[in-house]
Amino acid sequence: MASGDPSIDHPGEFGLIERLAAIIGAPSDERLVVGIGDDAAVWRAGESYVMATTDTLVPRVHYDPDIATWEDVGWKTLAVNVSDIAAMGGTPTLALVTLVTAPDVDMALMERLYVGIRACAEAYGVTVAGGDVVSGGAPSPTITVALLGEALRADDGTPLLLRRNAARVGDAVAVTGALGGAGGGLRALRNGAPHDAGRSALVQRHVRPMPRLDAGHAAIAAGVECGMDISDGLVQDLGHICRASGVSAEVDAGLVPLDPSLVSVYPEDARGLALTAGEDYELILIAPGDVLATASATLESPLIVIGRIVEGAPRVRVLDAGREIAIGQGGWDHLKPG
Amino acid sequence: MASGDPSIDHPGEFGLIERLAAIIGAPSDERLVVGIGDDAAVWRAGESYVMATTDTLVPRVHYDPDIATWEDVGWKTLAVNVSDIAAMGGTPTLALVTLVTAPDVDMALMERLYVGIRACAEAYGVTVAGGDVVSGGAPSPTITVALLGEALRADDGTPLLLRRNAARVGDAVAVTGALGGAGGGLRALRNGAPHDAGRSALVQRHVRPMPRLDAGHAAIAAGVECGMDISDGLVQDLGHICRASGVSAEVDAGLVPLDPSLVSVYPEDARGLALTAGEDYELILIAPGDVLATASATLESPLIVIGRIVEGAPRVRVLDAGREIAIGQGGWDHLKPG
Repeated sequence: MASGDPSIDHPGEFGLIERLAAIIGAPSDERLVVGIGDDAAVWRAGESYVMATTDTLVPRVHYDPDIATWEDVGWKTLAVNVSDIAAMGGTPTLALVTLVTAPDVDMALMERLYVGIRACAEAYGVTVAGGDVVSGGAPSPTITVALLGEALRADDGTPLLLRRNAARVGDAVAVTGALGGAGGGLRALRNGAPHDAGRSALVQRHVRPMPRLDAGHAAIAAGVECGMDISDGLVQDLGHICRASGVSAEVDAGLVPLDPSLVSVYPEDARGLALTAGEDYELILIAPGDVLATASATLESPLIVIGRIVEGAPRVRVLDAGREIAIGQGGWDHLKPG
Repeated sequence: MASGDPSIDHPGEFGLIERLAAIIGAPSDERLVVGIGDDAAVWRAGESYVMATTDTLVPRVHYDPDIATWEDVGWKTLAVNVSDIAAMGGTPTLALVTLVTAPDVDMALMERLYVGIRACAEAYGVTVAGGDVVSGGAPSPTITVALLGEALRADDGTPLLLRRNAARVGDAVAVTGALGGAGGGLRALRNGAPHDAGRSALVQRHVRPMPRLDAGHAAIAAGVECGMDISDGLVQDLGHICRASGVSAEVDAGLVPLDPSLVSVYPEDARGLALTAGEDYELILIAPGDVLATASATLESPLIVIGRIVEGAPRVRVLDAGREIAIGQGGWDHLKPG
């Protein structure tokens, strides 16, 4: 499952997940359609296909109670899970919410957290049906959401899914909207920026992500079979697709759509943030160009083609006027011509 | 969802859950069959009924890494969720596991944790299909499992469930096995006890709970409609049923089956622990006596009738030779003749 921005997340996360997955071993139940390694698990229940995902927000790691409102934290906690379902092309249904807090938690703050959860649930048609409240160390809660969803089905009953392992050589790579805004918003919250409309728009992108259920459904309807959401940053997430599909990807940096507010507030860093910052929760969609065009035609804002799938070892090459540029850990500041 | 032993859990847990549930409001989606307030949520997915539950184990609150092996912690983390599915009469299917740990977590210990999770998954037919690993404060992980299950269905397709709100005046109250063993095991681990066979059996009850899927299914097949698992202690959990059903319950203390090892290691406290200690993960089953007899006949170890449902305000009266005895917070030590 996607798990937030790795730059502030568990350093060894991916290695540890692989070691633990090896202990669990290959699943033997034929009802498991999608297991470890995609945005959500998919399970056949009778004629239906149930999706399941979980994401956790840790205070000071995934949210900062000093700079985000509790309503915003609640919204985001559910929204990042909704995005996992969107990334599979599904529709979210049922959520369980677990709070781990100190016994002396401020109940009024937790109520505000739930106001945000409710707002997101209403916006995306999710039913919150329970969960757990347990004692932990810190007053600020660690919040875990488990979210179920349902897959669309073809006429023959088979599930229609956006998978990470379905990129094919010759496919085009598209994204569903402008990138870098959430990363810019986080920077504005942390480092300060003039309080103007641009800053407000960026902060909103960071604290109130809007999962692209609409785009996931449009992609499924058009026949797209490969996609995921951008939680860790475009280059890193596209790298996940390359590894899962056994292909290489080329991205034309000049084609990557930049958040307009990002360009106005951080003009120097806009392109770097759009390539590497996380938490925009737009989708990467990968398919033959005509299939993407069909999907795009049904969306309010069109898909933006930014690159292509090519043969080669699994990696992402970012091209600037045809020349490869190196992508560092910290964004555009660290990029050097290759 | 059940959430472990309240004596070591969130003091205000039940009040906080009620306040948060009020903010979420009454669910409007007709696919939600069971929402907040039972052992698991139940959701209609096409012709199927999917159950969902989540439980969290916090270090030093729900497990002690100094006295339990990591394999045991892994087993218990999944088992307490399996018990929630058993308590609804269902069959567990798919699990997602979230670890919140410090970045310098000992990966070898986490692998041992997963060995225990795998053992429990294999014992109960659960597929572990993903999850999340995220940075938190402590090296010992906070572990959250989200578990799905599937409900059995009647010939007409309606789901067959054990509910907390289905106790009726005149029903008999039964349990599926001897009680108090897990509480005795916790005491033996904490306070020391001679290392003999009795102690070993108690400790095993505490660290390796065995959810009663078999009894849940037998109850459903016989037509039982009311039940839950004993996670918080017999009297407290039966109280949950009384409140959900709007009835009163009487328990004959002398009929409550005592764990034989408990009687040998803690003879003085055995009855008190059986009435109030948690984490035995046996089931309470409530139905007319003949229905319980039918269920009992199909089980290897018979059901034990311990009381009855009567009219009155929602509460549990514990009777000793016909006289009510008071039940305190701390077990039998605090009980006084009423």
